[in-house]
Amino acid sequence: MQRSSSERDVRVRAWDDLLHDPIPGRIAKPRTEHGLTMLIDTGLGLQETRDLIELASPYIDYLKLGFGTSKLYPATVLADKIRLLHEHQINVYPGGTFLETAILQNKWEPFLDRCLQLGMRTVEVSDGTITLSPELRRRIIREAKRLGFHVFTEVGKKENGAMLPVDVQLQMIEADLESGATNVIIEGRESGKAVGLFNEDGTLRRDDFDALVEQLPHPSRLIWEAPLKSQQIELIHTFGPNVNLGNINPRDTISLEALRCGLRSDTLRNTL
Amino acid sequence: MQRSSSERDVRVRAWDDLLHDPIPGRIAKPRTEHGLTMLIDTGLGLQETRDLIELASPYIDYLKLGFGTSKLYPATVLADKIRLLHEHQINVYPGGTFLETAILQNKWEPFLDRCLQLGMRTVEVSDGTITLSPELRRRIIREAKRLGFHVFTEVGKKENGAMLPVDVQLQMIEADLESGATNVIIEGRESGKAVGLFNEDGTLRRDDFDALVEQLPHPSRLIWEAPLKSQQIELIHTFGPNVNLGNINPRDTISLEALRCGLRSDTLRNTL
Amino acid sequence: MQRSSSERDVRVRAWDDLLHDPIPGRIAKPRTEHGLTMLIDTGLGLQETRDLIELASPYIDYLKLGFGTSKLYPATVLADKIRLLHEHQINVYPGGTFLETAILQNKWEPFLDRCLQLGMRTVEVSDGTITLSPELRRRIIREAKRLGFHVFTEVGKKENGAMLPVDVQLQMIEADLESGATNVIIEGRESGKAVGLFNEDGTLRRDDFDALVEQLPHPSRLIWEAPLKSQQIELIHTFGPNVNLGNINPRDTISLEALRCGLRSDTLRNTL
Repeated sequence: MQRSSSERDVRVRAWDDLLHDPIPGRIAKPRTEHGLTMLIDTGLGLQETRDLIELASPYIDYLKLGFGTSKLYPATVLADKIRLLHEHQINVYPGGTFLETAILQNKWEPFLDRCLQLGMRTVEVSDGTITLSPELRRRIIREAKRLGFHVFTEVGKKENGAMLPVDVQLQMIEADLESGATNVIIEGRESGKAVGLFNEDGTLRRDDFDALVEQLPHPSRLIWEAPLKSQQIELIHTFGPNVNLGNINPRDTISLEALRCGLRSDTLRNTL
Repeated sequence: MQRSSSERDVRVRAWDDLLHDPIPGRIAKPRTEHGLTMLIDTGLGLQETRDLIELASPYIDYLKLGFGTSKLYPATVLADKIRLLHEHQINVYPGGTFLETAILQNKWEPFLDRCLQLGMRTVEVSDGTITLSPELRRRIIREAKRLGFHVFTEVGKKENGAMLPVDVQLQMIEADLESGATNVIIEGRESGKAVGLFNEDGTLRRDDFDALVEQLPHPSRLIWEAPLKSQQIELIHTFGPNVNLGNINPRDTISLEALRCGLRSDTLRNTL
Repeated sequence: MQRSSSERDVRVRAWDDLLHDPIPGRIAKPRTEHGLTMLIDTGLGLQETRDLIELASPYIDYLKLGFGTSKLYPATVLADKIRLLHEHQINVYPGGTFLETAILQNKWEPFLDRCLQLGMRTVEVSDGTITLSPELRRRIIREAKRLGFHVFTEVGKKENGAMLPVDVQLQMIEADLESGATNVIIEGRESGKAVGLFNEDGTLRRDDFDALVEQLPHPSRLIWEAPLKSQQIELIHTFGPNVNLGNINPRDTISLEALRCGLRSDTLRNTL
């Protein structure tokens, strides 16, 4: 029964000839630097993954196997999952914390090799938990780039309430892009609360956010980790329907796409 | 493997000859105006839908494809989902916000036609986001009725903290029922917070609620959107196990039925 | 497609030869008194259960069919679920509130028989909602033991904000272990908030917790209901990676195992 739907053309939608999206301009896959949706997967089973793909693959660009969860997968399940996602143009990559673990164990080079063996072509370089010198950070980014990886980096600390000063964030973003990162992720964790630019209740630290945005040389190359609906709404209002958003709960994939297109009250309202 | 269980008789339950439900009187399907559970679906895959049906179809009367999500489905997945649900006596319908979008684009009549073509026989007429004149509201309800739809209407605004005065709500409820609506939904959104009769923390605005309930001519024809467990408990306490409840998270289907039947501490307690 | 992965050897993990777990010492199944993870299932479908097993069965010792939900299952689905879980060394048992319901209806002995007929070999004896005399409590524990059950008991009340005095909890724990209970569960409900040792926001009542822990004769035989991540982190910090944890949301199975092993920032941090 699964076969039937998943092999048919997913681009045909039943309402598209009748109604247009209230917010125009949402771009379709393949999306490269812009318009990206990155999911955080903290333990989707294989059949759930098939379900998600069948319903929503046009709305997913990246799926991150959150923190060190991929180490806990049976090897065969991990291999099946990576293959399934790649067949539908969804890039899979291991969580930044997992590469940090490899760095701590002086194994980051074999870590990159193993990613290649497993078929993963994206990595995220971060220091949310560990201390990482600018030199080693640059070296890892460059080496991953040389090996053919699509490289994300992340700026921000995972400690409760931690926020790097805006000028430090700006310097890191610039340095990472220069070193070869395609996109830089702004830390928001899975919770979206009490971390980076987010207050304890998940609202934006508006002053810091504005100060950062104002000075950004390449705003479109950031990916904002924004797991909460209120954050997604605010970022869509600020940057438009193609803002890059990350750490989206897989269950919110369709809801987020509806927000981007104005198919939900919170963003439809602004078109009136 | 799926086939085996789903085709067997779902009415046989392993404990029913031994123990009775602590709260008696819960009615079985088909339920028409009363005892209804309406789910809000923001992106269930086909296999998840099959799972839900196999486990819990006796406890589900309506499934709403939340806001404009149905526009984002591949046509084949949407068709399969509608068929699956109807085969198990679960009525599917598009979210009120989606019809509001059609109204904004002057396409509400073709919208109703398309619903019929897709096999949907229920619609919800609302003005949670748009402004809708009483005249057009009545016209849409009547036309949907004439086409053979089962018509829900909704009373309430989706803006943060918004609540219509109780007497305005009462007038709208009366007018909608006179125009042909079968049930009137009281707005609670997906979150159940800071909307309509709910405070920011999801508790009931008790004074307004009591004032509304006291003057209701047909309390059993309301459907209360009550996504939070505390709200479900309070409404079951007030109206009994067959109160109509809406915007239930599909994952809470069995939990809600347990509350209705006194099979969970929060409602069992009141039978002691 | 499901068959392929689930029948292969789940113990082979793709990264284990390269990286070690940051927190060492996590023990593997079969786990008996120690290192236990108990899930609370409030309505997983059969295919979701297969998915969970395929991905995470090495990390699950017990699955509780929360409160009275098992009464609502179609008999065939319940039978299939129990069989599936047992095939993967996951013990299934009905929620404590369901046995309380049977006690209220003077049917606890046929309840135990029915559990055996259904293939369940674990029960939980609790008085979270009802009043239960120490004599009857002891009698039920001993009878279940005699019938071959693995017996859990639970200490705590489910009312909002309720907490038994620490010395009462200690007496009950001692008495239950003497009567034959294998483990004693400390109440935390599905929410982890405003219950037992948890404050309204889910934080630990540290003074009461410390007083309890200090006087515990068999701390390793407790199972802490700790549905929230912050609680899991605090208990892992206090007791190590093999602390017994209960009422884990099935969706958090892999995340919790990552916390136990130091594969997530919150516990990796403490190894630095």
